[in-house]
Amino acid sequence: MRKVSPSTVGRLSIYLRVLSELDGLGAETVSSEELASRCGTTAAQVRKDLSFFGTFGKRGRGYAVEELISALRSILGLERRYRVALIGAGRIGVALLGYRDFQEQGFHIEAVFDADPKKVGQRWGGMTVRPDAELEQALAEEGIDIVIVAVPAEVAQSVVDRVVAAGVRAILNFAPTKLQVPAGVALKNVNMALELEGLSFALARESRPRTRRTA
Amino acid sequence: MRKVSPSTVGRLSIYLRVLSELDGLGAETVSSEELASRCGTTAAQVRKDLSFFGTFGKRGRGYAVEELISALRSILGLERRYRVALIGAGRIGVALLGYRDFQEQGFHIEAVFDADPKKVGQRWGGMTVRPDAELEQALAEEGIDIVIVAVPAEVAQSVVDRVVAAGVRAILNFAPTKLQVPAGVALKNVNMALELEGLSFALARESRPRTRRTA
Repeated sequence: MRKVSPSTVGRLSIYLRVLSELDGLGAETVSSEELASRCGTTAAQVRKDLSFFGTFGKRGRGYAVEELISALRSILGLERRYRVALIGAGRIGVALLGYRDFQEQGFHIEAVFDADPKKVGQRWGGMTVRPDAELEQALAEEGIDIVIVAVPAEVAQSVVDRVVAAGVRAILNFAPTKLQVPAGVALKNVNMALELEGLSFALARESRPRTRRTA
Repeated sequence: MRKVSPSTVGRLSIYLRVLSELDGLGAETVSSEELASRCGTTAAQVRKDLSFFGTFGKRGRGYAVEELISALRSILGLERRYRVALIGAGRIGVALLGYRDFQEQGFHIEAVFDADPKKVGQRWGGMTVRPDAELEQALAEEGIDIVIVAVPAEVAQSVVDRVVAAGVRAILNFAPTKLQVPAGVALKNVNMALELEGLSFALARESRPRTRRTA
């Protein structure tokens, strides 16, 4: 199977959302031009992205909306339930537990861990915070598919090394640091602080004289 | 000034975090090798990234930690306070308002807007949700620097068009769609759902036979 880039996968997720909206509006078919326009891309890109996974749509008739939704859900692995563990019962963790869309999309947070003895044993969104020392055993025994890392940056790599050693192959990282994982482990990063600093950088440069600074 | 890539800016944010940790541990200097190793990159990359902005560090002595922290805060535009408006008083918005780190980093949510008459007038984290119709006037009058878009995907582009027309030049998008902005407007995307689907895609492919599917 050809290598599929992360940006292709990201577009598939967007196609799926737009198709679900169209389905909700009662549309039965959609042309690649219409789908592309609603997704901020080109018809050629839509056709190329889908061609990785088979033959969809009919020339002159476009894509059958329900069929393509079903195919994309299958391609994206969304037809099953994922067991998720959250490591780090801090501010980001609280926000995530309150984010009900996760569950609706099939991602169920099943366990919460923290290294701080003051947090262990507290109730969190229907779960009890468990001690860090139980991590490896719990990940294996409870069949956790995906781990969310929401610990401070300086301990994130050591947590990830333990998670990988325990056999987990999918990690969503919220710690503001660059993590190393071996081949075969999928790692995605979400970092609002870094994105905001990208914006403040852009705003600061706009208001700065356009000459090169020297120290 | 040379063009600085988003990945360089992202690494500067990470250098800043690691340097702040080192400062907290009492370190006065750090070599490019040590900084690189703690940031998951190479010494050559660290030197190249910093060289965009001037001359830092002394051969054989490394970087002065406090001095480099101060320089990075200035480069990233973190020495001032940013006025932020949140558009969309939904689940993501609730999570963001509860995320106190924003404020500590200088990003202050000053206004919340929603198009739903049922939400307008409700109290939200010390603010009152304001009607969508007030958006343009409020953005201009209140000197909003950054807008956070947390509305449904299908209305996100029209909201962004209005925000851009009102003169805002920095947008953080949480809507799961690809947005178009004109040159000169900085746009960053944060999307947990898309990142999770990237992980489920990777997990699904692992467990699938490695032949090309045909429809």
